[in-house]
Amino acid sequence: MDPRVREHAAVIVEHCCDVSAEDNVVIGAPSTAENLVVALYERLGERGARPALHWSSARAGRAYARAMNPDDYRTAEHRLAEMEETDVVIMIGGSHNTAEQSDVSAEMGPARSRAHEPILQERLEKQWVLTQHPTTGNAQKAGMSTEAYEDFVYRAVNKDWDEQREFQAQLVEVLDPANEVHIVSGDSTDLTISVEGMHAVNDNGKLNLPGGEVFTAPVPDSVEGEVHFDKPLVRYGREIQDVRLTFEKGKVITHEAAKNEDLLTSVLDTDDGARRLGELGIGMNRDIDRFSYNMLFDEKMGDTIHLALGDAIDECVPEEMEANESAQHVDMIVDMSENSKIEVDGEVVQRDGTFRFEDGFEG
Amino acid sequence: MDPRVREHAAVIVEHCCDVSAEDNVVIGAPSTAENLVVALYERLGERGARPALHWSSARAGRAYARAMNPDDYRTAEHRLAEMEETDVVIMIGGSHNTAEQSDVSAEMGPARSRAHEPILQERLEKQWVLTQHPTTGNAQKAGMSTEAYEDFVYRAVNKDWDEQREFQAQLVEVLDPANEVHIVSGDSTDLTISVEGMHAVNDNGKLNLPGGEVFTAPVPDSVEGEVHFDKPLVRYGREIQDVRLTFEKGKVITHEAAKNEDLLTSVLDTDDGARRLGELGIGMNRDIDRFSYNMLFDEKMGDTIHLALGDAIDECVPEEMEANESAQHVDMIVDMSENSKIEVDGEVVQRDGTFRFEDGFEG
Repeated sequence: MDPRVREHAAVIVEHCCDVSAEDNVVIGAPSTAENLVVALYERLGERGARPALHWSSARAGRAYARAMNPDDYRTAEHRLAEMEETDVVIMIGGSHNTAEQSDVSAEMGPARSRAHEPILQERLEKQWVLTQHPTTGNAQKAGMSTEAYEDFVYRAVNKDWDEQREFQAQLVEVLDPANEVHIVSGDSTDLTISVEGMHAVNDNGKLNLPGGEVFTAPVPDSVEGEVHFDKPLVRYGREIQDVRLTFEKGKVITHEAAKNEDLLTSVLDTDDGARRLGELGIGMNRDIDRFSYNMLFDEKMGDTIHLALGDAIDECVPEEMEANESAQHVDMIVDMSENSKIEVDGEVVQRDGTFRFEDGFEG
Repeated sequence: MDPRVREHAAVIVEHCCDVSAEDNVVIGAPSTAENLVVALYERLGERGARPALHWSSARAGRAYARAMNPDDYRTAEHRLAEMEETDVVIMIGGSHNTAEQSDVSAEMGPARSRAHEPILQERLEKQWVLTQHPTTGNAQKAGMSTEAYEDFVYRAVNKDWDEQREFQAQLVEVLDPANEVHIVSGDSTDLTISVEGMHAVNDNGKLNLPGGEVFTAPVPDSVEGEVHFDKPLVRYGREIQDVRLTFEKGKVITHEAAKNEDLLTSVLDTDDGARRLGELGIGMNRDIDRFSYNMLFDEKMGDTIHLALGDAIDECVPEEMEANESAQHVDMIVDMSENSKIEVDGEVVQRDGTFRFEDGFEG
């Protein structure tokens, strides 16, 4: 086995999750990720933790969704009961074929998300991490050879996370006490977001591996303006391109997409919270030096910001504040490398992808 | 996809389990069985049932067992909680490599069985079925080409189960009211078993697919004599050959095996019930016309009987009777095709593999 697989497993079990003896662990993985699962099982065995292995088969998911009436979706009580007794959840991505769900009707994904929301909420109470095993399907999607993609993934995940945390702490210092964030990019993005009272979180690869961003939660009713997401996103196995949204009092009032707009509409119609922002994130992992059509990596890229429609991350929202709630959490990316700026309380903290604390420019 | 895969799925969901809308279903399968899983998901989607997919990875299981201290095995509460909320369990076999667990220490399997016994007992309360997807690993183990093995498997599973039930009903009529069964084969098997008060069950492929046997439960303290299992069995991925047991008052008092005797010892030492018989079965599926080193098929072969150490099947044991209880249920086979007979209450019902109701011989 590639020794980097075992390193990856060690990062997951020691850095991301700190799995203890007798912890009930759920691992969810596609069959392409068997090497990583094996390496994790070694670690879990050493620690005396108790694993359950869920197989994410995109082909099975497709078959089910195509055969199913969306009105029949209900919460799977057995899966909820399992999650309630679970301490640690390790979710692994890795596709045979990233287009496996391309012929599933757009309404099915949101219907599934709604049905599974109680399981999602329960999972968010646990220790959890989402990571990626490098597969040929994902390499192909990224337009990379398999070996180059493996190098790319392992550079991004098997790294010095303390050093990354220190780099990001500089932005947390600015964003945590901030009231208002103003994001401008080209002619089509000009957005004002209040983050007053919210916590800015330093993502050093604990919940997402790779990590490498600083994120916070918008005040749900505060978002005003328009945004053009110039990087595509993949949702329910389908690519949505060139999303444009207009916000008024926090709510999406117009939306369009150059490709798969119906899926975007379905996402927005999932529930009330799906029309509001749950997250503002700023990508800071410079080892992720290219776009790979995988949100887990793309949103951490340097010189990008991302916004998520839907559920806010609890960690960002103090108890006395209102958190946006939704069965969705859909990240979308804006490239900030050119003709762009991020202002915090009237001061420019990033210009064309470079932070003020990196080159000391004046706002 | 081979159309026989979808036929197999239809037999599972319609004949074996009768899955209803809103049933919580668990499918456990190796990644080699993805086609069958996909076909099952189609059926479950049509019915509005709610599946969870467990991945049986023999490589992960091996890694865990080798890293683990057997004293650390505990019941996985999250898996138990899931099972409590489950209505239907579909377990699918299908090996990449049937020797995957050959370098796991013999004590680990029984330790795992003991820890998981509450989950097993819970599962036995549900609708459940164990079946097999034809894989290259299993074909190799059977000494068959992949295509010939596929034909063999689909002949055995996709059949007219009503017809099979009628054929077997003739033996149920004899065995259900019986008091004593006497099994003789060659010089090394001469065993007397009381089945007084127990139910003989007609296995027409509901719990095991393929089915094709009639089975009952021995009265736990009644078994006397010696038995030589001339067909090997595979337990925890290792082959145990030429098992010989001697019983006194129902209990194994001597045991030996030509290969992997330590594993047999571990099985017997699992708990008290593992030293007693939980099942007497008589194979009657004549489409299974060869031994394939897979108990699910082998025990249903015509001209064989099998005995299981360990847990009795509830269906056989009336409420007022004592059922043998154990975390084990280990089937072992005696070839009855030559120099053999089965007597029930002093009358020969099978001689050299042929039943009295087939050729009308006189006992």
